[in-house]
Amino acid sequence: MVQLRYDGKVAIVTGAGGGLGKTYALELAKRGCKVVVNDLGGDRHGTSSSTSMADKVVQEIKAAGGQAVANYDSVEFGEKIVKTAIDAFGRIDIVINNAGILRDVSLLKMKDVDWDLIFQVHVKGAFSVTRAAWPYMRDQKYGRIIVTSSNAAIYGNFGQTNYSAAKSALIGFANSLAKEGEKYNIKANTLVPTAGSRLTQTVMPEDLVNALKPEYVTPLTLYMAHESFPETGKVYEAGAGWYGQLLYYRSNGKVVTNASVEDVANNWTAISDMKNAHSLSYMKDATAHLMDALAAQEEANEKANASGGASTGTSVGGDFPASIRSSALFKEMAEGVRKEPELVKNVKAIILYSITDGKNEIGKFTLDFKSSPPSVYFGDVKNGEKATTTVTVSDNDFCEIGAGTLQPQKAFMSGKLKVKGNVMLLQKLQGLTEARKKSKM
Amino acid sequence: MVQLRYDGKVAIVTGAGGGLGKTYALELAKRGCKVVVNDLGGDRHGTSSSTSMADKVVQEIKAAGGQAVANYDSVEFGEKIVKTAIDAFGRIDIVINNAGILRDVSLLKMKDVDWDLIFQVHVKGAFSVTRAAWPYMRDQKYGRIIVTSSNAAIYGNFGQTNYSAAKSALIGFANSLAKEGEKYNIKANTLVPTAGSRLTQTVMPEDLVNALKPEYVTPLTLYMAHESFPETGKVYEAGAGWYGQLLYYRSNGKVVTNASVEDVANNWTAISDMKNAHSLSYMKDATAHLMDALAAQEEANEKANASGGASTGTSVGGDFPASIRSSALFKEMAEGVRKEPELVKNVKAIILYSITDGKNEIGKFTLDFKSSPPSVYFGDVKNGEKATTTVTVSDNDFCEIGAGTLQPQKAFMSGKLKVKGNVMLLQKLQGLTEARKKSKM
Repeated sequence: MVQLRYDGKVAIVTGAGGGLGKTYALELAKRGCKVVVNDLGGDRHGTSSSTSMADKVVQEIKAAGGQAVANYDSVEFGEKIVKTAIDAFGRIDIVINNAGILRDVSLLKMKDVDWDLIFQVHVKGAFSVTRAAWPYMRDQKYGRIIVTSSNAAIYGNFGQTNYSAAKSALIGFANSLAKEGEKYNIKANTLVPTAGSRLTQTVMPEDLVNALKPEYVTPLTLYMAHESFPETGKVYEAGAGWYGQLLYYRSNGKVVTNASVEDVANNWTAISDMKNAHSLSYMKDATAHLMDALAAQEEANEKANASGGASTGTSVGGDFPASIRSSALFKEMAEGVRKEPELVKNVKAIILYSITDGKNEIGKFTLDFKSSPPSVYFGDVKNGEKATTTVTVSDNDFCEIGAGTLQPQKAFMSGKLKVKGNVMLLQKLQGLTEARKKSKM
Repeated sequence: MVQLRYDGKVAIVTGAGGGLGKTYALELAKRGCKVVVNDLGGDRHGTSSSTSMADKVVQEIKAAGGQAVANYDSVEFGEKIVKTAIDAFGRIDIVINNAGILRDVSLLKMKDVDWDLIFQVHVKGAFSVTRAAWPYMRDQKYGRIIVTSSNAAIYGNFGQTNYSAAKSALIGFANSLAKEGEKYNIKANTLVPTAGSRLTQTVMPEDLVNALKPEYVTPLTLYMAHESFPETGKVYEAGAGWYGQLLYYRSNGKVVTNASVEDVANNWTAISDMKNAHSLSYMKDATAHLMDALAAQEEANEKANASGGASTGTSVGGDFPASIRSSALFKEMAEGVRKEPELVKNVKAIILYSITDGKNEIGKFTLDFKSSPPSVYFGDVKNGEKATTTVTVSDNDFCEIGAGTLQPQKAFMSGKLKVKGNVMLLQKLQGLTEARKKSKM
């Protein structure tokens, strides 16, 4: 494999005066990267400061023929650190949010300052530096962002409620950065390192602490910062020469319609069973999945209503098949026009929806706003009438539109939502939704 | 199943003036719980306030024959909310951290205040209320704590870097609360709800928003708050009648000794392969696993040294088997006494370690500090000498001691570490470690 280089790239490494950060800075510089070596010079409790730590690393880089500049600002002043990069090298490509401190204390004894200081440095600091770098990355359509989490966040740890909360926050932060950066080739990922530095407080062999070298973490961090790194929004772990991934899995769980507390308790084995659990990449995937549950829920309510039983959900008559997830949306519309027919009285149109599985049609739904009273039903247009407008959309996409995770305009522009006939009518329909919202305020 | 009751219990539900919080408060009260209905009365942006929202819920509970009291403090003043519970009902058993606000904005446009406000309410608020309740829960050896996260934290979401970071922080917070609460029957878990309230900003059918009822989440939340709930430090999800679990899985990953950046890139498929991934419950499990990697790493370094190659790790001669994870620790000790023999010159003793797999011996290690020079080696005591002290410990436990997650004294007291002969000698050995630490400061 050809050497992975960083020529022409500029990186900020926070807390690079020692430990992990120092190894990142040295290795990046060795591979052609220009590095801003940020370090306040404080100890691990976040007190005192000296410029010498950052300076020494810069000297070491320069002595080896690399390019680096020191910065001594607290990570809370991210714009100053980014300014150092811009002033010295004219751009910023990589941000490695590595700076951190510890204030371990049990919850019982934790003071506000123990909590606040940890969040200021780890979380607000990473936010501040990343936000300052973001406009440059966005404009150049390139960026690599790494945040540093901890196994204390993943599993929890005694005496570290503050630290594990802050280290968890960074994972969620990187996850959203990944989504915001998608269009701009800005990749954001989380690193969970185990290196000697964080174990120095423990009782046993200092030699072991020394054995868990930062250098065993560095190659993963560097790869995550490289142009060729393929992932975003992920969590990776490194320590002692082992490299792996951490990923949230979601159980298949269980739909329990109109559940009581006892129902949840009784179904606990199925709900928490991780067999066949799987991972999802987007919030909309999680939401879309809930639409299935909703359809089952609605169907249960319908049956309860039909048999005269009590119902806690909306219930609409008609034959909306549970196998099509969009059914839930059409049912809601049917209920809507039944309750407030005056809202569609000016829409003199019949809209036929052809719902597909992505390829083939799996069902038709009709919105008949021409007849009086207006109606929404499963199947082709009845009564010898003809559709004014025909909409073709996949079951998935329509559910996403329903869940608000896919804008109708975008779906139309991207071809996910195809319209034959009066396109403007759909605009009108959307206005209708808006009007209804306002009327309820 | 008998009805799940909360008689005699006292709960605080923050943000209980509407939405999810209100349903929790109502359902808890219906089942015999005394409830502090906390609500600032603010809107979802965290501005304005009125006492009427909390009051209305309290009235509704009382009208149905339940017991409740209103509290109007911001969650940042947790001690005031807990004081309301103690003053009115004399105890506190359940804290449901539910209060939340939104300040959605892209990172590019996010102001400090957008970030800070979200963290103050969601994170500092949950910390503040929980910390105030903690001493009571600890003293009574009973407590149930729920924090509210979001799929925005799990997957990330555009325009929600602040919200997803804060909602992630709560997961790590609950994880550590779970560990700190283990001894006191205080269970802490995370809820990821999807309910209509949070989707109100979206374009499409308001009816769908209404269909995603908070009532579909409530039974899970109530179960998580119940005395019989079996879990702690876990994450559960509910929405639209679906209930499930979210759990971090760790890939089997790969050990790459003395890896370069290119090595990590070349092994990326194996490192990130989630096949046969598994979940861990404790940070020490993750650390213990890294000891295997360390042993492999050390062995690789040894071989490199033996063949005259370059080495970046500590290297010690002798035959320390890689199949025993504790080998790494003994190697470190061997290296330690080789470098600084004067540190053990006053320990005129031979310590024999019998390492077991929990049942049977899998290997012996000798610390000979009597001979000159002192030495550490694999196997029984050589040269016709006899052990002054014999220590029996499992490979797992010894690695934990080495990693600092198991205190030697505790291991001894609990019988995990058995000592024959001069017990005080081990105390001396520990003093030795301390002395070495100091000498390096």
